[in-house]
Amino acid sequence: MDPAATQPPSRPADPASLPGLEAGTRVRIVEVGARDGLQIEREILPPASKIALIRGLADAGLRCIEATSFVSPRWVPQLADAEEVLRAVADLGERGVELPVLVPNERGLERALAAGARSIEVFTSATESFAMRNWNRDLAGVLAMAAPVAAAARADGLPVRGYLSMCWGDPWEGPTEPARVAGIAAELLAMGCDSVSLGDTIGVATAGGVHRLLGAVTDAGIGLEQVGLHFHDTYGQAVSNVQAGLLAGVRTFDSSAGGMGGCPYAESATGNLATEDLVWFLEGVGIDTGVDLPALARVSAEMAGQLGRPAPSAVARALAPHGSTVR
Amino acid sequence: MDPAATQPPSRPADPASLPGLEAGTRVRIVEVGARDGLQIEREILPPASKIALIRGLADAGLRCIEATSFVSPRWVPQLADAEEVLRAVADLGERGVELPVLVPNERGLERALAAGARSIEVFTSATESFAMRNWNRDLAGVLAMAAPVAAAARADGLPVRGYLSMCWGDPWEGPTEPARVAGIAAELLAMGCDSVSLGDTIGVATAGGVHRLLGAVTDAGIGLEQVGLHFHDTYGQAVSNVQAGLLAGVRTFDSSAGGMGGCPYAESATGNLATEDLVWFLEGVGIDTGVDLPALARVSAEMAGQLGRPAPSAVARALAPHGSTVR
Repeated sequence: MDPAATQPPSRPADPASLPGLEAGTRVRIVEVGARDGLQIEREILPPASKIALIRGLADAGLRCIEATSFVSPRWVPQLADAEEVLRAVADLGERGVELPVLVPNERGLERALAAGARSIEVFTSATESFAMRNWNRDLAGVLAMAAPVAAAARADGLPVRGYLSMCWGDPWEGPTEPARVAGIAAELLAMGCDSVSLGDTIGVATAGGVHRLLGAVTDAGIGLEQVGLHFHDTYGQAVSNVQAGLLAGVRTFDSSAGGMGGCPYAESATGNLATEDLVWFLEGVGIDTGVDLPALARVSAEMAGQLGRPAPSAVARALAPHGSTVR
Repeated sequence: MDPAATQPPSRPADPASLPGLEAGTRVRIVEVGARDGLQIEREILPPASKIALIRGLADAGLRCIEATSFVSPRWVPQLADAEEVLRAVADLGERGVELPVLVPNERGLERALAAGARSIEVFTSATESFAMRNWNRDLAGVLAMAAPVAAAARADGLPVRGYLSMCWGDPWEGPTEPARVAGIAAELLAMGCDSVSLGDTIGVATAGGVHRLLGAVTDAGIGLEQVGLHFHDTYGQAVSNVQAGLLAGVRTFDSSAGGMGGCPYAESATGNLATEDLVWFLEGVGIDTGVDLPALARVSAEMAGQLGRPAPSAVARALAPHGSTVR
């Protein structure tokens, strides 16, 4: 058999739109591998690795790359180099790449602004249990911590995004009430966020639940242009959930190169939706993402090599060079 | 942290239907692991392993289990024990489990009927290239081989299913023309098949392409109640493609326990859609499958152990016992 013929295609060969999807639909991908993906890694990577990762992602065509987090290094030692990393990629910002950074509190915002941050994220929870376990305070306390950050960044004219974790369920409380998620999302927007990212932190969402939550969000008066979706692939549903979100009208999706990252609270959970798998889906339904998939798969393979394990992305595996050690 | 709380849920906790999906929708799952999944394995499993697999699948609630293939043992040595396996699970047939078997030609049909087969499958291709490589004859020749099998089985009152491979693309010809697939599907129905299974053998379908092909099938006068879909997860799109098929009106989906199987013509391709991931999706959108997911995941883990590698199913991994060697 001709080996060349058995090489899998490197992008969907024959795109076809979905019923109900407008021609010319644009989607924004928020690449979260360098922050959300790396932060759970125990082995501390050198700043040069993170800088190379962010540059590689930008070179592969990604235009919104979460760069780092200005949390206390005591909480997340992996990202203690936030200033160094952000400064080293500042030129990408000048080339039109948005580089949001996560900021937990006012001290973090000072550090972020001093390091040149031009896009801010705050992080909250849809459940009391996760709030207590992640921040050791109740949800009101978490929101009170985020509010001055959002207000100050907004006053500085910076875009501010509010992350909401555990939007479909959490490991302690089970399913999350959609109206509750919508209410907290509305609070985030009221305190100064421009947009919210609804996170399925443990990967329990399925397509019907995506429609249901987005219905509750719309009922709360939130426009879907302010909403992003952040799925985990724990149960293999992430791409299907993106389809549901896209059909419901969402145009922003978070993903992580190679599927890096996971949920520290669900031991066997696999990671974030892989950017490669998301791009494959979007290109397949005729949405031009501007992402060079083989280039992105190389970036993921390089990082997987550094982390010592294969990237969980199906597309990254399919596109890996034959004989690669990270297949 | 309470370890019990971090155990992932074993089924979707909070089902929600999809817009446009009728209440009470039923779906038929055709479990293909014991035939389609195993046939590419080089190491020959003993009949007892296959019998235990089929029994385990039935005990987990699957009601249509592809049991074996009556191809020549020279072509597929793995399934040389077809008679023994089928006879050993015949009691399941009496308990309402359908046990289709693949039959390539009239000699195979004689063997299948002598062994007690009550449900027959014939296998064809949507492309000339795959026909030539898999059967060393052109597509007309492949259809001519299947036709007397379908007619004879139909005359005996047995259900006959026609498999069509490479329906969205093949490694040599690229994308497959939807009208061509629909035309061959119509030929299969005309020759005596009750239903057809449209296979994405190399996993290149995306959701829009599923709608497009089903549109062509409908345009050819084929009712979707006669159509099943058979996806591979090479690019992580299989569950999303099921969603598209379900929304378009298809009610039969093929899948393989643990995602066993693959395509021998695409070296880095991952396997069939995992039954666990399919069931998770269906239960998530409120469709009762009757499948006991933890029981199914145990069956897949047992087989993965015998095959010496982890099951590619996300759900199977998530549900694997902690410390399991096949995670």
